Amino acid sequence: MNILTVGSVAYDEVITPFDRRERALGGSATFFSIAARHFAPVSIVAVIGSDFNLADEQLLEHKGIDLTGLEKVDGKCFFWKGEYLANWNDRITHDTQLNAFEHFKPKVPTAQRNSDVVFLGNIHPTLQRDVLNQVDKPKIVALDTMNLWIKETRADLIDTLKHVDFLLINDSEAAMLSGKRQLVEAAKTIAEMGPKTLCIKQGEHGAILIQGDQIFIAPAYPLCNVVDPTGAGDSFAGGFIGYLAAQQDFNFETLKKAVIYGSVMGSFTVESFSVDRLASISDADIEARYREFIKFTHFEG
Amino acid sequence: MNILTVGSVAYDEVITPFDRRERALGGSATFFSIAARHFAPVSIVAVIGSDFNLADEQLLEHKGIDLTGLEKVDGKCFFWKGEYLANWNDRITHDTQLNAFEHFKPKVPTAQRNSDVVFLGNIHPTLQRDVLNQVDKPKIVALDTMNLWIKETRADLIDTLKHVDFLLINDSEAAMLSGKRQLVEAAKTIAEMGPKTLCIKQGEHGAILIQGDQIFIAPAYPLCNVVDPTGAGDSFAGGFIGYLAAQQDFNFETLKKAVIYGSVMGSFTVESFSVDRLASISDADIEARYREFIKFTHFEG
Repeated sequence: MNILTVGSVAYDEVITPFDRRERALGGSATFFSIAARHFAPVSIVAVIGSDFNLADEQLLEHKGIDLTGLEKVDGKCFFWKGEYLANWNDRITHDTQLNAFEHFKPKVPTAQRNSDVVFLGNIHPTLQRDVLNQVDKPKIVALDTMNLWIKETRADLIDTLKHVDFLLINDSEAAMLSGKRQLVEAAKTIAEMGPKTLCIKQGEHGAILIQGDQIFIAPAYPLCNVVDPTGAGDSFAGGFIGYLAAQQDFNFETLKKAVIYGSVMGSFTVESFSVDRLASISDADIEARYREFIKFTHFEG
Repeated sequence: MNILTVGSVAYDEVITPFDRRERALGGSATFFSIAARHFAPVSIVAVIGSDFNLADEQLLEHKGIDLTGLEKVDGKCFFWKGEYLANWNDRITHDTQLNAFEHFKPKVPTAQRNSDVVFLGNIHPTLQRDVLNQVDKPKIVALDTMNLWIKETRADLIDTLKHVDFLLINDSEAAMLSGKRQLVEAAKTIAEMGPKTLCIKQGEHGAILIQGDQIFIAPAYPLCNVVDPTGAGDSFAGGFIGYLAAQQDFNFETLKKAVIYGSVMGSFTVESFSVDRLASISDADIEARYREFIKFTHFEG
């Protein structure tokens, strides 16, 4: 099935406890699409400024990502400057410049209006809904969001969530959205809002999948060298949604595998700045890490 | 097999984002022994002040913990005041008073000198070694430590580690001790120091077991209501070491089960302040959560 995603294509300036990188290709749509493209065709709806490097555009094209919906405007690309503190858990945002994104009106190209799978990356919920309104009856709609939108644009988000099957957020966001601290109760409340499946991303600590009474707790792959965590969550989403788009059914066992592929893709992303590592891996690398993951988490009880 | 543990028996003042508790029974030996006692006999070597409540002493006795080695001195019990911030990951220590612990010289009672399993709770490494020197050829020695001792008393710690089989620390402590950021490499360096098995405690995010080329990644049990994380790590150690003390062999499959029992015991502890929840559970509660854990993490690949 074809995947359509809306999100940011951006330049990041990233500071880690050990190193730093300027003008690192980033953005949710970038990480998502490079990860998901290993599993299924992907089209991007996003906006870039005139400062977007030709080499970065060629990288995305070379990866086989459909860029028909990548709008180009005058001015600069979305920019984020952030710093990871020594414990890697805390991240400080030094600067966010919407730039090209400020007046972004997502336009889904005609050829992509029949996409079967839609991934609404972490942007303003009304933009997410704009995209959804331009697509004909997708089989799967997944949405990523964050504390900012839950807090500032709650009504818009709740309106958008009505049409969403899979919600990907972290545990504190699930608590904030649902008003319930206990995850199973949070999932129940969120299911009533729309998304019947909740995927709790825990970053370097794995993910939890909750669908009705069914629960799957997956640890992360902790054996990689963390260089830069930026984009890990979007890459997780790319592996998760990408794997699903290549399947015939979406039963809970299939969803579990999708979570593991999500963790695998996230684990590659953190091994370098930007998409350096993610863009260099082969399908065989992915399968090898997936097998390793299964081996290291196997437990008979 | 009988377990001997040395550690603190203390009073804590705990502030969480939602509540607070004064004079909460705490300390590493307290949590460890209540958790471990579900699996095997446990003796404590520790010191308390004259302010120790009779009810708390009776609780430990009632749980069947041998208190022959619990020394009583004039003055106050060890005291810790801490606060958990809104994200639960960051903990601020407002006050630490050694009190009775200040001049503590651990004395292992004669009857406990032949203990088969020794758990050296998180205290100064020379005190840990003092205990070890008083015990005859234990079958298992496990040690818990922290960044403070790794940094301030490194030579003493490394000397003590020579006699240790299992080291329980978190990932940043493993990096600090070994000088290696990658966990498998850290475990290799630490194995050369003594402990052939490394158990990386990740708190609410599970644990990783590394022994030579064998690795087991276990997620935590995330479905409980977190009220107070204090003591979760010590309770994890109690479940882990307690389960091992009740086994005949210590192969890697056995160690995996021990990790899960550790996570189970930690998950109960966080559901209340102090030992309120941990001290109220039955063997059946533990088995039920262990089964639930297996169900929720099961994955065929």
